[in-house]
Amino acid sequence: MASFRLEVIGVEHIPEVRYGDNVAALIVEACRKGQLTLSSSDILVVAHKIVSKAEGRIVELSEVTPSPFAHTVAKQTGKDPRLVEVVLRECRRIVRMDRGVLVVETHHGFICANGGVDASNVGPGRVALLPKEPDASAAQIRRGLQELAGVQPAVIISDSFGRPWREGTVDVALGIAGLEPLIDYRGKEDTFGYEMKASLAAVADELAGAGELVLGKTRRIPVAQVKGFSSSGEAGKGSHLIRSPEADIFR
Amino acid sequence: MASFRLEVIGVEHIPEVRYGDNVAALIVEACRKGQLTLSSSDILVVAHKIVSKAEGRIVELSEVTPSPFAHTVAKQTGKDPRLVEVVLRECRRIVRMDRGVLVVETHHGFICANGGVDASNVGPGRVALLPKEPDASAAQIRRGLQELAGVQPAVIISDSFGRPWREGTVDVALGIAGLEPLIDYRGKEDTFGYEMKASLAAVADELAGAGELVLGKTRRIPVAQVKGFSSSGEAGKGSHLIRSPEADIFR
Repeated sequence: MASFRLEVIGVEHIPEVRYGDNVAALIVEACRKGQLTLSSSDILVVAHKIVSKAEGRIVELSEVTPSPFAHTVAKQTGKDPRLVEVVLRECRRIVRMDRGVLVVETHHGFICANGGVDASNVGPGRVALLPKEPDASAAQIRRGLQELAGVQPAVIISDSFGRPWREGTVDVALGIAGLEPLIDYRGKEDTFGYEMKASLAAVADELAGAGELVLGKTRRIPVAQVKGFSSSGEAGKGSHLIRSPEADIFR
Repeated sequence: MASFRLEVIGVEHIPEVRYGDNVAALIVEACRKGQLTLSSSDILVVAHKIVSKAEGRIVELSEVTPSPFAHTVAKQTGKDPRLVEVVLRECRRIVRMDRGVLVVETHHGFICANGGVDASNVGPGRVALLPKEPDASAAQIRRGLQELAGVQPAVIISDSFGRPWREGTVDVALGIAGLEPLIDYRGKEDTFGYEMKASLAAVADELAGAGELVLGKTRRIPVAQVKGFSSSGEAGKGSHLIRSPEADIFR
């Protein structure tokens, strides 16, 4: 449950991440250097970019040959056809294609601009893809922390998503380990004894957003440590935050 | 700009708010009782419900006569026709009406379920509306804090909104005073010198979400104090977070 006081701390001292790196080991080492104490009651918010790098989910655009459809989409959206080709490979459905924006549904089921394919912070001529299985990546980092430091904090792998109707991006939880992503207030009585009908809080997304406030995109701080939010939920997954097509009135 | 460490603290000791109450005075008194120090560098996240109560934005359903259209919508959505009537009065457009969900655009321009009209925590037979001018309400609370305590924290008035495609609600900023709601990373160079194209972070929404993590809907904690996020932006408004119809590809 939510707590009365929480702290969000940027974890510095994480080096540039390369293919094959052990993200858990980098976090443990960075916490040691920064004199941060890791605990099993913490929640670590990890920017997906470092996970994608460690997992080799980086594409060199010079090695991509765009399909005819990618060229067509690129012309309409004003994007690099090679980038569009990569986006199309990552997606199973185009949700909106309008005014230079390409919103797609990824193979995971996330609905986001460019399928999460992103050119920032990966070096010139390269783009980063989302991790292939963000929940599995979160679980792997969590297991690594257990092995290396003897603690099992919850792990959230985050990315910045745009939203319909509102300006700007907010960070959301793609992958989760050790945390229930939704807190169900439904059926609990409010302070008047009225049974609340529609209060299911996406706390994992709010935690990812809180993490973003300290991550800062232009600095080399890809991990935030959240203290004071008592996490529970061994079975929690980021995929539980994806609305099923049947329940989705905005498909 | 974002900071390396921030703290989110639930402000306890706020009594049940009534029509005409001075929200700033209640916050000052609650901070005194809770031994919390208010500072001009703080950000206060205030659940809109207490602002709505203080401003008299509460409707007794027994006094509402539903129109024929309200009855029609109520039948299709399974809602109380009096609640639907209130929602219709608060909105200028129905965005989606499907599977028991009524998503509308309010007169402010917010797109949300039931136009933000909400029956929780206001007592039986009553519903709370959103504040009429959330930015003005935030500015008024901020002025009150200056007058009563000599400090000018930023103020965010928040509510829980659902989202397309993702389960659960996250808190967002309806009204703002003293805070730039969007941080523009565009044009700043990332750690590789690559100019970022599409990074405009809705930090006010992330701050509202961080506040929700300590507010807890079933406890009487309607205000969170955020320390460590250096706020700036005298001209910032919650309305700046509403995407203009021209830029909105999801109308």
